[in-house]
Amino acid sequence: LEHNVASRLRLSGLCVLLQILNILLFAVFVRYSPESSSSLCSLQLNCSRRNQDSGFQHPRFRDVHLQVLLGFGLLVAFLGRYGPGSVVISILIVSFAIQWAVLIQGFLYFFHNGKIYMGAPSMVSADFCTAAVLISTGAVLGRVNPVQMLLLALLEVILCALNEYILLSLMGVSDSGRSLTVHTFGAYFGLMVSRILHQPHMDKRRREDQQDTGHQPDVFAVVGTIYLWIFWPSFTSATTVHDNAEPWAVLNTYFSLVASTVATFILSLVLYEESTPRMVQIQDATLAGAAVMGMAGEMLVTPFGALIAGFLAGLISLLGFRFFTPVLHFRLKIQDTCGVHNVHGIPGILGALLGTLLTLLATADAYGDRLELVFPLVAQGSRTAVDQAFLQLCALPLTLLFATLGGCLTG
Amino acid sequence: LEHNVASRLRLSGLCVLLQILNILLFAVFVRYSPESSSSLCSLQLNCSRRNQDSGFQHPRFRDVHLQVLLGFGLLVAFLGRYGPGSVVISILIVSFAIQWAVLIQGFLYFFHNGKIYMGAPSMVSADFCTAAVLISTGAVLGRVNPVQMLLLALLEVILCALNEYILLSLMGVSDSGRSLTVHTFGAYFGLMVSRILHQPHMDKRRREDQQDTGHQPDVFAVVGTIYLWIFWPSFTSATTVHDNAEPWAVLNTYFSLVASTVATFILSLVLYEESTPRMVQIQDATLAGAAVMGMAGEMLVTPFGALIAGFLAGLISLLGFRFFTPVLHFRLKIQDTCGVHNVHGIPGILGALLGTLLTLLATADAYGDRLELVFPLVAQGSRTAVDQAFLQLCALPLTLLFATLGGCLTG
Amino acid sequence: LEHNVASRLRLSGLCVLLQILNILLFAVFVRYSPESSSSLCSLQLNCSRRNQDSGFQHPRFRDVHLQVLLGFGLLVAFLGRYGPGSVVISILIVSFAIQWAVLIQGFLYFFHNGKIYMGAPSMVSADFCTAAVLISTGAVLGRVNPVQMLLLALLEVILCALNEYILLSLMGVSDSGRSLTVHTFGAYFGLMVSRILHQPHMDKRRREDQQDTGHQPDVFAVVGTIYLWIFWPSFTSATTVHDNAEPWAVLNTYFSLVASTVATFILSLVLYEESTPRMVQIQDATLAGAAVMGMAGEMLVTPFGALIAGFLAGLISLLGFRFFTPVLHFRLKIQDTCGVHNVHGIPGILGALLGTLLTLLATADAYGDRLELVFPLVAQGSRTAVDQAFLQLCALPLTLLFATLGGCLTG
Repeated sequence: LEHNVASRLRLSGLCVLLQILNILLFAVFVRYSPESSSSLCSLQLNCSRRNQDSGFQHPRFRDVHLQVLLGFGLLVAFLGRYGPGSVVISILIVSFAIQWAVLIQGFLYFFHNGKIYMGAPSMVSADFCTAAVLISTGAVLGRVNPVQMLLLALLEVILCALNEYILLSLMGVSDSGRSLTVHTFGAYFGLMVSRILHQPHMDKRRREDQQDTGHQPDVFAVVGTIYLWIFWPSFTSATTVHDNAEPWAVLNTYFSLVASTVATFILSLVLYEESTPRMVQIQDATLAGAAVMGMAGEMLVTPFGALIAGFLAGLISLLGFRFFTPVLHFRLKIQDTCGVHNVHGIPGILGALLGTLLTLLATADAYGDRLELVFPLVAQGSRTAVDQAFLQLCALPLTLLFATLGGCLTG
Repeated sequence: LEHNVASRLRLSGLCVLLQILNILLFAVFVRYSPESSSSLCSLQLNCSRRNQDSGFQHPRFRDVHLQVLLGFGLLVAFLGRYGPGSVVISILIVSFAIQWAVLIQGFLYFFHNGKIYMGAPSMVSADFCTAAVLISTGAVLGRVNPVQMLLLALLEVILCALNEYILLSLMGVSDSGRSLTVHTFGAYFGLMVSRILHQPHMDKRRREDQQDTGHQPDVFAVVGTIYLWIFWPSFTSATTVHDNAEPWAVLNTYFSLVASTVATFILSLVLYEESTPRMVQIQDATLAGAAVMGMAGEMLVTPFGALIAGFLAGLISLLGFRFFTPVLHFRLKIQDTCGVHNVHGIPGILGALLGTLLTLLATADAYGDRLELVFPLVAQGSRTAVDQAFLQLCALPLTLLFATLGGCLTG
Repeated sequence: LEHNVASRLRLSGLCVLLQILNILLFAVFVRYSPESSSSLCSLQLNCSRRNQDSGFQHPRFRDVHLQVLLGFGLLVAFLGRYGPGSVVISILIVSFAIQWAVLIQGFLYFFHNGKIYMGAPSMVSADFCTAAVLISTGAVLGRVNPVQMLLLALLEVILCALNEYILLSLMGVSDSGRSLTVHTFGAYFGLMVSRILHQPHMDKRRREDQQDTGHQPDVFAVVGTIYLWIFWPSFTSATTVHDNAEPWAVLNTYFSLVASTVATFILSLVLYEESTPRMVQIQDATLAGAAVMGMAGEMLVTPFGALIAGFLAGLISLLGFRFFTPVLHFRLKIQDTCGVHNVHGIPGILGALLGTLLTLLATADAYGDRLELVFPLVAQGSRTAVDQAFLQLCALPLTLLFATLGGCLTG
């Protein structure tokens, strides 16, 4: 009991400290960007194509928020025992990580004259960062206490923002749906932390906990799946730079989701002794199908490509759960509470490879006017398609390296 | 047990087959329409009024998707026993039907030079088709296995697309909210299939199942009702051709929902021995109130018309449940698991009749500028209002005929 | 039993009466505004800044609806016993109150030549009014029967519309997020009704009921909280007159939510003997954090202001639950079923005071071009900032007076 009171007070104290720190930093550095408001209106008026900031629209912003909170909150909630409790912690993590990410990303991107001028776009970037934190959280859930989770969020936001800055701004990699910077980074960061924190005696208890899944999680899984279906395509296309490229990203993601769901049906009926797949599997398939479209979403020019990619992602994700998770668990001593490796890690890598392949094949013929929009540097002639593909490929090991080192440090 | 394994493998095999078929057909025929993306932007710029494709907006697209998945998925879920399981099957049906409907409708509408050039609008049409399939599914739920459901979807998508093509494109019928092509068609198709599949010995078991509704369904019904309220108006107005006509369709649908809900309260307190109506009844009333506004939504010029129509729809739907469902069940040997006849069938017909009446009364005086938008052919003088009304009326028996024959065949 | 039948028939009869009354009044008075449709389109085209009607956009309209139904419906639902039943009653109240509010507000605002010309904006105003009714309902829930609730809605809509008309139109108070006219008015109206209806013997029974909260409410609370997070910012900014001012209102509300959530964590860990706060507390904190931003949302020029305000609102709301509700209950004999005083009343007043303070500080320097948008009268020179602040301050006791007197009368 004593221990309990002490841990509550420690959590409470840490929250006070961090919140005061945030308020102070905001007071000193953050101001609203004076143009943020007017740019939103001018968007309606002249729809300038090449300006990322003005390409931002309010409804999309809300969709991303919805993703972060609902999608991942529910994902995390699917373990029966951690159900409502884990949602509460998720919301705390989100509350803190959003403020922190606005600050960190503000220092990297929007820092002028000693002030960060923020607008709605910086809020969207912060949401992406928060998503990566939540994915990592999924890997260690149930084995760390809230204080540790807050510290994890503190460090991961910094590293995630740094990784994103290097990839997107310095290297010019195209990763609009964040296959790499969110899914892959979040998954491997979480897995490394999980590896470091591995405690054999905790292990057994956890596996028992996992059994007592009641009926509750199914409700969450149903609602969660439906929302992923509806809002994920917007998430994937939230930062596609150009309004023109968006519809394809949305449609590609839908097709990928559809194919991934069918793949899950096929495989789950063969692999497991059940007459219908469980709802949670459908949810995972949906996530995997969406993660694989992260980078390639705006590049794919034919719908059947999305169908095939989604189909493969669905198959791989389920095979991973069946055969790879036990290996991970017993050989490498990495526990993966919510299966983030199969749902985010593998599909993220697959998506990055697919994006690289598509970049390699990018020619003016296939893309027409769109080439300029999807790969501006290639279209301007300052880079060849092969160079761009090489950079895209390089981004993958770089992200893995960042995630692994970061995870080790944090652990 | 053996039987169980065999049926699982059969379902799995069918899924593989259909998915591969879909991928192949997509690979051969379907390409993204090159204009789809640019038209979306030009919409913001010059808002051209008469072009259906450019009248499409992303948020509406998502709303329709949400409808299809959530609305009907939850509708189907309200039978306790089939709860989570039926949602899983619904999602499989949706996954397959969307791909299939894109293909079939593509062949009818968007087929040029051996390729289907698809964009976001064809996705919306596919969603409408999927909605009809889900309504039919509601009528036969619990009495057919997933393999039969997939075959039902396979056939119904073809017939539904054909019916829609004849009504909307060839006859020029105005049915923006799909009273006829989705609600009426789906309901009667499902009922006919249910009639053909009637097996007396199954009957008893089902009625027992129906009893064990726990607390769970109520949660679904609450969430489902709220979402229907929020998103149905967008569904009804998703394909209103002209941006100008939309707000009336939305407002009319809201008023209809409101009146229908009040009607349900009034009648359920009199008919049933309960102090408050059950949540599921409210949900049905909401659906009925929305279905009746399908065709007439954009035609009504006064709010009180919508109030009266919704009020009648609510009354009729509830009276149907009380007095007509038993007749249907024992005399005509049609089982209607989710009451689709009362919720979709009757209100759909009522909506079509109302639409006909309104078309008959359509004069340049009442509509002003809007006449040109709602009834373009009448405004251009190539048709009189009476002709248009006659065509609208003809569309009703035609749809019924299509649905009945199709249901027989499929059964 | 006899009593039960009689009360059901009375409710049913009242519904019939009110609905017929509504239909008749709509038939006589309400017509769609002919410009409503075209103004929506012209918005896209020339984005005129100073016209409130044309500043209306469809997605926002839906968000407000969602708020009203989901947010408050779920808020009300959190008492286990009244769970599904109270949602049903809420929907009846909403159905009636929306029609009634359209009428009453129509007479005040849109009455020309003996007709009310309504469009989408009048629907939004009606939704705000309905929200106030639902807040009041939360205070008396479980102690009044549905017939009394309908009568309460009947009277409150009239008073709320009158209050809003005086404040916003006659006095020119700026209250875009409705801190005063919705939150404060609704809370104190409900509390006064609750005071008048106080019956000592009912008291004990209620407290027992409150105990048997099962697992169910948690699901509702989770879903409710997530939705409040997502859609409340849109609610707050739904009627910000000028498109330009919106993004700040949205961002301020987000920051306020975030800070309020963290504050709840901090305090609930100290005050209560639990390792994590309960979901319902998080939900209340979210509401409080949003309510405080109602008036000040579009005025705040720095993000850290929103962080501090939200933090304070979260602290005060929780302290109120712990220390003030018992005082209210035993000393003042006011029962507050859902804690609306802490969640809506106090933060509403706080928000109004903050708004006054900010108005006082409003100078052309800090606001720049925005001054004209947020305080048009000040910018035009017809009022000084101090006058405006004085009026904002006067609006607070006026609203309290209206609410208290109205509550007494209704009781």
